Amino acid sequence: MFKLVVDDEISLYLVNEAFTERYVELLEENNEYLSEWLEWPGFCKSQNDFKEFVKESLHKYADGKAMTCAVEFRGQIVGNCGLNAIHHPLKMVEMGYWIGKQYQGNGIITRVCRYLIDYAFTKLGMEKVQIAAAENNRPSRAVCERLGMQLEGIITHREKVGDRILDHAIYGIHKAKT
Amino acid sequence: MFKLVVDDEISLYLVNEAFTERYVELLEENNEYLSEWLEWPGFCKSQNDFKEFVKESLHKYADGKAMTCAVEFRGQIVGNCGLNAIHHPLKMVEMGYWIGKQYQGNGIITRVCRYLIDYAFTKLGMEKVQIAAAENNRPSRAVCERLGMQLEGIITHREKVGDRILDHAIYGIHKAKT
Amino acid sequence: MFKLVVDDEISLYLVNEAFTERYVELLEENNEYLSEWLEWPGFCKSQNDFKEFVKESLHKYADGKAMTCAVEFRGQIVGNCGLNAIHHPLKMVEMGYWIGKQYQGNGIITRVCRYLIDYAFTKLGMEKVQIAAAENNRPSRAVCERLGMQLEGIITHREKVGDRILDHAIYGIHKAKT
Amino acid sequence: MFKLVVDDEISLYLVNEAFTERYVELLEENNEYLSEWLEWPGFCKSQNDFKEFVKESLHKYADGKAMTCAVEFRGQIVGNCGLNAIHHPLKMVEMGYWIGKQYQGNGIITRVCRYLIDYAFTKLGMEKVQIAAAENNRPSRAVCERLGMQLEGIITHREKVGDRILDHAIYGIHKAKT
Amino acid sequence: MFKLVVDDEISLYLVNEAFTERYVELLEENNEYLSEWLEWPGFCKSQNDFKEFVKESLHKYADGKAMTCAVEFRGQIVGNCGLNAIHHPLKMVEMGYWIGKQYQGNGIITRVCRYLIDYAFTKLGMEKVQIAAAENNRPSRAVCERLGMQLEGIITHREKVGDRILDHAIYGIHKAKT
Amino acid sequence: MFKLVVDDEISLYLVNEAFTERYVELLEENNEYLSEWLEWPGFCKSQNDFKEFVKESLHKYADGKAMTCAVEFRGQIVGNCGLNAIHHPLKMVEMGYWIGKQYQGNGIITRVCRYLIDYAFTKLGMEKVQIAAAENNRPSRAVCERLGMQLEGIITHREKVGDRILDHAIYGIHKAKT
Repeated sequence: MFKLVVDDEISLYLVNEAFTERYVELLEENNEYLSEWLEWPGFCKSQNDFKEFVKESLHKYADGKAMTCAVEFRGQIVGNCGLNAIHHPLKMVEMGYWIGKQYQGNGIITRVCRYLIDYAFTKLGMEKVQIAAAENNRPSRAVCERLGMQLEGIITHREKVGDRILDHAIYGIHKAKT
Repeated sequence: MFKLVVDDEISLYLVNEAFTERYVELLEENNEYLSEWLEWPGFCKSQNDFKEFVKESLHKYADGKAMTCAVEFRGQIVGNCGLNAIHHPLKMVEMGYWIGKQYQGNGIITRVCRYLIDYAFTKLGMEKVQIAAAENNRPSRAVCERLGMQLEGIITHREKVGDRILDHAIYGIHKAKT
Repeated sequence: MFKLVVDDEISLYLVNEAFTERYVELLEENNEYLSEWLEWPGFCKSQNDFKEFVKESLHKYADGKAMTCAVEFRGQIVGNCGLNAIHHPLKMVEMGYWIGKQYQGNGIITRVCRYLIDYAFTKLGMEKVQIAAAENNRPSRAVCERLGMQLEGIITHREKVGDRILDHAIYGIHKAKT
Repeated sequence: MFKLVVDDEISLYLVNEAFTERYVELLEENNEYLSEWLEWPGFCKSQNDFKEFVKESLHKYADGKAMTCAVEFRGQIVGNCGLNAIHHPLKMVEMGYWIGKQYQGNGIITRVCRYLIDYAFTKLGMEKVQIAAAENNRPSRAVCERLGMQLEGIITHREKVGDRILDHAIYGIHKAKT
Repeated sequence: MFKLVVDDEISLYLVNEAFTERYVELLEENNEYLSEWLEWPGFCKSQNDFKEFVKESLHKYADGKAMTCAVEFRGQIVGNCGLNAIHHPLKMVEMGYWIGKQYQGNGIITRVCRYLIDYAFTKLGMEKVQIAAAENNRPSRAVCERLGMQLEGIITHREKVGDRILDHAIYGIHKAKT
Repeated sequence: MFKLVVDDEISLYLVNEAFTERYVELLEENNEYLSEWLEWPGFCKSQNDFKEFVKESLHKYADGKAMTCAVEFRGQIVGNCGLNAIHHPLKMVEMGYWIGKQYQGNGIITRVCRYLIDYAFTKLGMEKVQIAAAENNRPSRAVCERLGMQLEGIITHREKVGDRILDHAIYGIHKAKT
């Protein structure tokens, strides 16, 4: 599978149908955990749903509009991350991620995000990376803060998760002017 | 033309090809003024461009995704306003507007926006109306403040106007819980 | 809702999803009556069917090909009318209408049609308005005659209503040459 | 080429790109004559235009919506005819034709139309064949009359030929009830 | 129906919905026989399936990409043949055929193919006709040999019939250089 | 860029817009050489052409229909290779490649093809890999032979390169039955 090497422990693979069985497994182990703040577990459940997700993600990649990756940690797929929307005219990307709860505490997300921020700035010519975390999703907001991102605002009514309409904390980081 | 009556002086007409000649006139009188903070004068200039805009706006209206109106003040079309994006699942709409500089100072925009906010809450079942103004567009931000909207954040890298990538002040107003 | 004012008692609203509940009600009250000469009650029955009809009508309006309106009489929606087909190169429109049986006898259709004929001639630049009534639909043909329209012919095999293939009386009225 | 044999002198070929060179020739010889009452010589002139016409006609044939044929008389293509619109639910077809002026007077059109009327009734299960001739197109109306068709009406504003908007004499013939 | 006359006993009709009832009949009589080497009996079974096949074939004909015919022998439809793919830039066509087992032994396929080879070379400007027969389909390969075609190779993994992936014997015949 | 490591000297990158500048350079250096047996240099010349090629290739990858890669040798992009068509039902892939003439003689293509054959068999579940080389393209046929592929036939009229219609030597290799 096509990959990017983050460090000795972590690689990112361009999403592929081959990972969908593992995604279902991760979702089943972490359904409650992932459903708390994410929209997609509400409608993406089966391997076929994930195959659709993979296909759609790869078509966006083909159009230069997104770059979605499976996260491998110590030889095992543990989650997914990516540049969910690449806005070329605005030189800005929106980033997102999730990993199984059991893999938390290893700094995986932080290392992945650092790598992707650098990738966006140096390979894609972007000037800003943005993360939107649900206002009350403390762990996700902690990631943004660890990455040195700025809180730009709390924008209300931005995402529907189950029956709740959530507000988003919007974080941004800019390429250093040199 | 199909219309909504705001008050004795102001009506809103569902956009129509019939207004495009007047739109060109307004744009030509106000090109510099409108180009300062708005994206569209960069690529929407001729009557044909406006006809395309009208057609596209009406198709969005047909799909329940937008509602774009010509603003009539004392019997004359003076600008355009609308619910530029209607997000049904989020119960949220994004609102926008522009009028010719010579019509400013009559409280037109404020009256129009108040009407549309009420329309969104009572006719469309929305719970939030949002306006995004360029950070340094003081007059537009003053409108938001007059309308009693809350500043939710300054989100960077949100719009490209000419060569500048602008930051947006995001304002929101919520339907009173009753 | 966007409207055109015909007179003190009658307004026309651009069709809208908001009217579909009322349309179902009118159809249920008048099913036999409307099914006698009209094609659509055979396949447009539920609120979802009417929503599809509304959406399709609005897309045609966006393309300048039709203009379909709900008819309001003394504050209540009583039927539907419209320019069902606008032929710009031929400067000709085809007009149609229906109202609940209980609202007949108030001259509603005649007043609406007079308004729409004038609208077609003055706002849309048309030169002919045409109505096709089933040959044996006496009330509808009486409307055409009251409007001063000319009978141009009885064209056979023009519409399928249930299992019957109907012939149409074609009426036309032309803009006065001035 | 796929053909239908009308009689010893006349065959009909399903339209084919192979005939387009001859169509251009016929049009050039008869431009003024054909332009008097027909719409298409205004925009279908080059071999490429005819290729588009052939392709479109064959796609309609594939969908069961039309059947367009080249007319061969004594071994030479002399014009075009066809069932221009096949309305299955109405059991009705609209028929049309043109031939080069120099081939008139041989009863070609009458024989072709008789064959096609029979074809529509016996092979396609139709019950009515309709021809629309421009009101003042005497030769074409004479064909309809020779075929024993009924004049159903003069419908105004039905076709645009150059700058003129023409009225149509509508003729119909019905399958004998047996 | 539009036809090509091969000889006194055989005609080819451009495929038509009218033949689909007969196709179902032929398939039911020959299901086992046809399923041995052909792919389509696995998914084209009902009259509706054949109607889809006819429609699709005619659209390809409209685009100049195929020419599919019903084979008539002594007044009865006995099978189907055609130029299944017409490659204009390569001046090459792929040909295929099937007839009911009970009609074999009359030289029908050989006569049809000879006619179509000549048609491809003289009417369509092709330079090569190719037939692909399953490697072990002796009768089909015997046809190719009788037609004087050259065996160009046995290409593996070329068609899936049921659960078997078949190899193809590829035969070709070229237009004589003159 | 997402990559597959072939060996110490060679990597394969999923094609990407980032390589298109280098592709133009390679083409300009090798135009005559590449045009001798390949079709694409006839119409894919500019960086925009290559961007279209990359985009189309990535959409095919998203659909699981192809996998196109840039070939890196000792840190430099030297050509392109890939599974040009992946036929899942037939468990067969078609493979292709080109590199700049100056990089020949290093066994690059052979190593890349061996890697891709193994990838097709073990990762994609394929059972056959096929290469089509122009009959007289000796170097390309030598690659097939070095890879231990079988010559299955010389199929005529298979590709148009400039004005020549070329014949193809078809080579295949099958997964060992175990």
